[in-house]
Amino acid sequence: MVKNTKVNAAILIIGNEILSGRTQDTNTSTLANWLNSIGVKVGEVRIIPDIEQTIIDSLLLLKTTYDYVFTTGGIGPTHDDITALSVSKAFGLKYEIHKEAYKILEAYYKPGEFNEGRQKMVWMPENAKLILNPTSGAPGFSVGNVFCLPGVPSILKSMIGGLTNSIVGGNPILSMTISLRTVESEIAKSLSKVQNDNKDVEIGSYPFFQAGKLGVSIVLRSEDQFKIDNCNEQILKFVNLKKIEIVDR
Amino acid sequence: MVKNTKVNAAILIIGNEILSGRTQDTNTSTLANWLNSIGVKVGEVRIIPDIEQTIIDSLLLLKTTYDYVFTTGGIGPTHDDITALSVSKAFGLKYEIHKEAYKILEAYYKPGEFNEGRQKMVWMPENAKLILNPTSGAPGFSVGNVFCLPGVPSILKSMIGGLTNSIVGGNPILSMTISLRTVESEIAKSLSKVQNDNKDVEIGSYPFFQAGKLGVSIVLRSEDQFKIDNCNEQILKFVNLKKIEIVDR
Repeated sequence: MVKNTKVNAAILIIGNEILSGRTQDTNTSTLANWLNSIGVKVGEVRIIPDIEQTIIDSLLLLKTTYDYVFTTGGIGPTHDDITALSVSKAFGLKYEIHKEAYKILEAYYKPGEFNEGRQKMVWMPENAKLILNPTSGAPGFSVGNVFCLPGVPSILKSMIGGLTNSIVGGNPILSMTISLRTVESEIAKSLSKVQNDNKDVEIGSYPFFQAGKLGVSIVLRSEDQFKIDNCNEQILKFVNLKKIEIVDR
Repeated sequence: MVKNTKVNAAILIIGNEILSGRTQDTNTSTLANWLNSIGVKVGEVRIIPDIEQTIIDSLLLLKTTYDYVFTTGGIGPTHDDITALSVSKAFGLKYEIHKEAYKILEAYYKPGEFNEGRQKMVWMPENAKLILNPTSGAPGFSVGNVFCLPGVPSILKSMIGGLTNSIVGGNPILSMTISLRTVESEIAKSLSKVQNDNKDVEIGSYPFFQAGKLGVSIVLRSEDQFKIDNCNEQILKFVNLKKIEIVDR
């Protein structure tokens, strides 16, 4: 197989609790950082409610637009956990008991504790591949290029390590940060010129406020270290000319 | 004007720094909590990169699907700040100097400091309405039902207070949380029955781990306090029957 140099993904956060503001999503940054480290760029994130048709429509679009789709949330035992059923419908697959998942959970719980509620968690799209859960037993699953993970951040974190072999990333996305004691408007014009001269490097400018002082972090991102270094040199040139202090951050 | 009972909104988070995992978005929960408090339900959130066509396409879809759209990010002075230009194009409006914004920033900065970089921040879609910024001068703006706010969380927070008069909310969305010392699978079946008997109340079930103990928070959401109370009563009935402890959280 020829390895793609550019591989992308979408993240689909499923959960009313994020949309209501009750829960602060942190799974996006966890997944994005991990995906970047294995050469997968996140192109888009959608946060949607626990509504079957919305989940299906989002999946149908994202799974054809991106190399990979990662969903979080909705794979627990309660009535509002409808991700597995929705994925089955999106792929036109039977929604059935996954025998391997059943065995895992039967062994995980004490005798008599693998009750009806818990048994709901082994219903999956037919032929789903399991994503093992070292924290709390109940596995996630993948179908095609869609990977379904739980919403609880600590459990999600414990599961992504086991996923790395299932994802074929592209070239790792490298980044470099230069933090300056300045304000954005002082460097906007010079930075814009550097961006125009280096179209293959994504240059972001982010103001910060630290220990009572304003600053700007410039972030350079590319798959090519040489291009990043080149960009960095051009930035340091105008930084020196303008006598701007470089700070640790 | 007849007040809608149901008013909804989408949030569009614009910024490569969120998609790369570098920055943890907190604006979604800030906006969602505020919108809920004024009777606006968030139907969807999208996080997209700083790419003009992506911003335009997202705006065109969201502004016709939802009563309100709130964007965050991309209204500063640097080359990656392209929200105002993209909104202009999405609405087919001229992108021009906003005279009132110009006056505000001219007065805000010391003589000589209102430089070219800062002047970029007064370029907006023609006839945009300003959203005043008590923190750092540079205003946000609205066009039609689209409200454009900055990405820096502290500045965004300082600006939404002044927006409340521009948003006509529906009935406030009320919520009640019941936290239980149990696990989801123990209550899944009973809770499912309550949801089936109370279709107008959104019932969410969220496991938590606090002080070394597992628990589940059940969240009831509706515009009708009577319906929430009714639901709560039915839940307390099965909670008592199952001898589950109710906990503070």
